[in-house]
Amino acid sequence: MTEKVFPGLEGVLAGESAICDVDHDSGGLLYRGYRIEDLAEGAAFEEVAYLLLIGRLPNRIALSEFSERLRQSRPLSENMTAFLSKIPATANPMDVLRTAVSLLGLEDPDSKYNDHQANLKKAIRLIAQIPSALAAWRRFPEKPVSDPALTSNVPPSSHAANILLLLTGAPPDPFSEKVMNVSLILYAEHEFNASTFAARVTASSLSDMHSAITSAIGSLKGPLHGGANEKVMETLLEIGEAGRVEAYIRDRLARKERIMGFGHRVLKKGDSRSDIIKRYARELGERKNDRKWFDLSSRIEEIMRKEKGLYPNLDFYSASAYYLLGLPVQLDTPLFVCSRISGWTAHVIEQHDHNRLIRPRCLYTGPRGLTYLPL
Amino acid sequence: MTEKVFPGLEGVLAGESAICDVDHDSGGLLYRGYRIEDLAEGAAFEEVAYLLLIGRLPNRIALSEFSERLRQSRPLSENMTAFLSKIPATANPMDVLRTAVSLLGLEDPDSKYNDHQANLKKAIRLIAQIPSALAAWRRFPEKPVSDPALTSNVPPSSHAANILLLLTGAPPDPFSEKVMNVSLILYAEHEFNASTFAARVTASSLSDMHSAITSAIGSLKGPLHGGANEKVMETLLEIGEAGRVEAYIRDRLARKERIMGFGHRVLKKGDSRSDIIKRYARELGERKNDRKWFDLSSRIEEIMRKEKGLYPNLDFYSASAYYLLGLPVQLDTPLFVCSRISGWTAHVIEQHDHNRLIRPRCLYTGPRGLTYLPL
Repeated sequence: MTEKVFPGLEGVLAGESAICDVDHDSGGLLYRGYRIEDLAEGAAFEEVAYLLLIGRLPNRIALSEFSERLRQSRPLSENMTAFLSKIPATANPMDVLRTAVSLLGLEDPDSKYNDHQANLKKAIRLIAQIPSALAAWRRFPEKPVSDPALTSNVPPSSHAANILLLLTGAPPDPFSEKVMNVSLILYAEHEFNASTFAARVTASSLSDMHSAITSAIGSLKGPLHGGANEKVMETLLEIGEAGRVEAYIRDRLARKERIMGFGHRVLKKGDSRSDIIKRYARELGERKNDRKWFDLSSRIEEIMRKEKGLYPNLDFYSASAYYLLGLPVQLDTPLFVCSRISGWTAHVIEQHDHNRLIRPRCLYTGPRGLTYLPL
Repeated sequence: MTEKVFPGLEGVLAGESAICDVDHDSGGLLYRGYRIEDLAEGAAFEEVAYLLLIGRLPNRIALSEFSERLRQSRPLSENMTAFLSKIPATANPMDVLRTAVSLLGLEDPDSKYNDHQANLKKAIRLIAQIPSALAAWRRFPEKPVSDPALTSNVPPSSHAANILLLLTGAPPDPFSEKVMNVSLILYAEHEFNASTFAARVTASSLSDMHSAITSAIGSLKGPLHGGANEKVMETLLEIGEAGRVEAYIRDRLARKERIMGFGHRVLKKGDSRSDIIKRYARELGERKNDRKWFDLSSRIEEIMRKEKGLYPNLDFYSASAYYLLGLPVQLDTPLFVCSRISGWTAHVIEQHDHNRLIRPRCLYTGPRGLTYLPL
């Protein structure tokens, strides 16, 4: 054992994984070997979730079966809906999701099994149920438990369209559905980020899928991880108009305050996902005839590049895209969950398939040899 | 960055900590500089919890105030009791505790705060409430919500006595209380074990105490961590009598099956905690006039030392001690939680006080350059 300490495990290779490759120099990203640009442009989120979980792309039949299993898994139990309906609307949405997934673990028909097939079944159920759980909490008590949006008795809809229907109350237009689909693909996976690593640490004691995902949600809640993305939109709303950007940003920078949506722990030279969502955020603004948020955002980006040499991360342009899709700002981090659940569950499956307990050591820095005197 | 992979982070120093020092050669253990032998012999669990959380031993007044705060924090909200009462008795107890702690996070009066003082308040509440949550679930529906054991309106009782009262339904005799107190001290803390590390990873995004503890409980559930300790008692019950030990163990070893309660990821030469609990398990058997489980256990220990060179870990003699205390076997891992919650919360406080996001990397082993063809 070396006595070298690795604070935050920065740069430490904590294991092997065949799920996702992040090119830290170029900011490029591969899911199972496929470029994120190509997947975002051409694939459905269901296809990408299949790719992450199964390890290869589906053909038409496999995709259709997989999508159907997702649709059929959407409804929640009465017990779960009743429970979520009692949680106040003012609760922290990530606390609600963390508790909901923990409770789903109690109900899961495969809760006693941890093998590859059981894990896969749990993964599909979780991907399907998380948006339903969010909707069952959010829309209560305005909508009854039998809300068809929470059941599978609706015309087949894509995962992206279903999320927009559940969280805005209306079926989306095709371009809005496309933007949500792209966003779900971009947020789906990013190797050993903190929440994924939390899931793997938890799973590594051979604990179960729901325990691991509960850990991941708790981790994503933190403002140094997913918990930051709603702050981007709050900043945009605070600035309010393009003419105020320059003064606002320079003032914040002068006070050494952080501007959310810029920089990344491992991506130092830019994030290819940001370029993709930026294009969709711009087009969405044009189609909705509301260019203000894009103009504001791109002006901020310009100043941040010039003044701080920082590039926008995925959260930056996602914020105004979600806003234009009619999604409440406080759901930004839960929407991250709706997507990343696919990557998290793929990692838990991989961890269990090649398990080794994740148990580091620490350097003890406290006193030694103190004498205890009983009171 | 090195290209060396550290599977399971074995031997990697993932950070600094002043809470606990494990001497991996001798199996010795210090909490904040004090020997575990001295604490187990002379201290109350409340004193040790104070030591772990605050960093120094309490004087009489401080201990009395701290114990009183714990007592006052024992009652659960009506909402929580009602929720727990509906969970079937057949549920996995660790799933129940994980969900209960997640829900406690939604209710916590300091849920919006993450500073040192708020963390300390949450820690005290969690130490007090976890046994109550377990009892509220277990004893329902036999006992009403107003069960005095779940409220603070009972004569002052130690944490150990309260746990035994809650989980067995009767106030313990003084020696049983002593054994529970010793066990709570021995299980309280063990540096960067998997569940503590899961809590620190989750906390490192600056997520909150309850998210971190939810992760820890999920991790402890796994059979490679806390989830193993009930297996020890199941083995003892299966063997049933001392005369069958030799054949049973040799048969299991011949079939390359693992005997639970032996060996430890970082303690290769023995575990000082095992020697301590062994003495109490023996004396408990003598006082209860039921020496069978100790005789069985020590015979297994003898064979395992001789045949495999393996030493018993803390779980091994704890199992029969809990059994003689009248505690159901399936509560062994939850009892681990009742104790380790003190160490977990101390680690979350330390993590937040000197935070750095825990975000390792992984070595990508999958394909590159695959071409996506839209369906």
